[in-house]
Amino acid sequence: MKNETIDDLQLEGLKLIQKTDNFRFGVDAVLLSDFAKPKKNDRVLDIGTGTGIIPILIAAKTGAAHITGIEIQPEMAEMASRSVKMNELSERINILHGDIRDWESVFSKGEFDLVVANPPYMSVNSAIKSSSDAKAIARHEIKCTLEDLVSAAAGVLKPNGKFALIHKPARLVDILDLFRKNSIEPKLLRFVFSKNDVPPSMVLVHGTKFGKKELRVKENLYIFNQDGSYSDEINRIYNRSGSFGKAGEGIE
Amino acid sequence: MKNETIDDLQLEGLKLIQKTDNFRFGVDAVLLSDFAKPKKNDRVLDIGTGTGIIPILIAAKTGAAHITGIEIQPEMAEMASRSVKMNELSERINILHGDIRDWESVFSKGEFDLVVANPPYMSVNSAIKSSSDAKAIARHEIKCTLEDLVSAAAGVLKPNGKFALIHKPARLVDILDLFRKNSIEPKLLRFVFSKNDVPPSMVLVHGTKFGKKELRVKENLYIFNQDGSYSDEINRIYNRSGSFGKAGEGIE
Repeated sequence: MKNETIDDLQLEGLKLIQKTDNFRFGVDAVLLSDFAKPKKNDRVLDIGTGTGIIPILIAAKTGAAHITGIEIQPEMAEMASRSVKMNELSERINILHGDIRDWESVFSKGEFDLVVANPPYMSVNSAIKSSSDAKAIARHEIKCTLEDLVSAAAGVLKPNGKFALIHKPARLVDILDLFRKNSIEPKLLRFVFSKNDVPPSMVLVHGTKFGKKELRVKENLYIFNQDGSYSDEINRIYNRSGSFGKAGEGIE
Repeated sequence: MKNETIDDLQLEGLKLIQKTDNFRFGVDAVLLSDFAKPKKNDRVLDIGTGTGIIPILIAAKTGAAHITGIEIQPEMAEMASRSVKMNELSERINILHGDIRDWESVFSKGEFDLVVANPPYMSVNSAIKSSSDAKAIARHEIKCTLEDLVSAAAGVLKPNGKFALIHKPARLVDILDLFRKNSIEPKLLRFVFSKNDVPPSMVLVHGTKFGKKELRVKENLYIFNQDGSYSDEINRIYNRSGSFGKAGEGIE
């Protein structure tokens, strides 16, 4: 199809269709897939799945029973569905075109064991953008605010279900606040740094529905060593299955 | 006096009285004094001042106009007063014996520009202890919960006044939650690590009363280098005035 590439994920022969002129998956999706840690037989929901990269990585790397990806942009959802089919993962992954704000018309309450999201980082007021632009929808909270997202996640999660999110540190107070307001107790934080001696660029947050209050802050995750080479941990995450290609694949 | 030592702070000739068998000041008080950054002519309140180390460091290192330390344990308050007098700082520091939960009977609403606190880290349920023990009072939330503390800070702070706190990362969600509930917007976080590759041991939080929502997470603060020597930043903090003695003074 026009303006598309088929990229080799170098992981168990998996491939991913991406648009050349649109949002392509980045290190954040890869880090979140690694951080989310679904348990065997979990039913997983990826909110705002985009290219479908997260369902595909989770299917390839974990024992999760089934992953649903929901995406509001019809052409992105259609493309993600083709990636799923191409990888013969249709039995474990289902891509839906839909609006997570209407989750009650699509999902049952408490249907999922794990929800993951790599949502738009920028609030609607934070920059000028065209609301019809696909890239803008992927990057700004035009179609789904952080509040919409956490509220939907809380709705579809089982008691003791988990919610794993990656976002910008600037939004951390809002995230923790919204988690608590929606009865998802933040249990684990991990800050992501491009390298040492700079502020963190991203934060990974793991919460548990109706969880007990007690936060753990994990050791930092560094993308690069001080000499500019990829860190051992990034190499591990990208090479977990021994064949995910060279580190940094997909790092923007 | 029995069971007391007079310790040379190696900073502008300052000395501090401490008990040999009781809570002695640690690196957390020093880090908080450095992180709090009072402005010239600020009126500062230190809640739970203990030995009085924080008012004394702030008086020595900054242009704050006046620092009040409040302490619930009468013998600690009395000892801190003697340290203030010994250092001839009675014009800039006032130590009060009192209970911050009764702040309205002691202070006026909006009286302070900056509140600092190095509060007990452990909740009352977290360990067995004797509630009459002075060390237990300094370490556990027996006399003052985190909720009491934040609520009192909000009460005595001016609009746009600042609150600087050091605590354990495990309590971060509670801290941020209580800050917001009391209209103190968390603006700055800094995690403190003994060294790289381990989870943070402490977190510094800076909030602004009625502040605009936007969190900044600063680069990490490391106490030690990987080789076990003190980090450059710890050396800077301990030597800021060129005479604060060797790094690690007071590090537990």
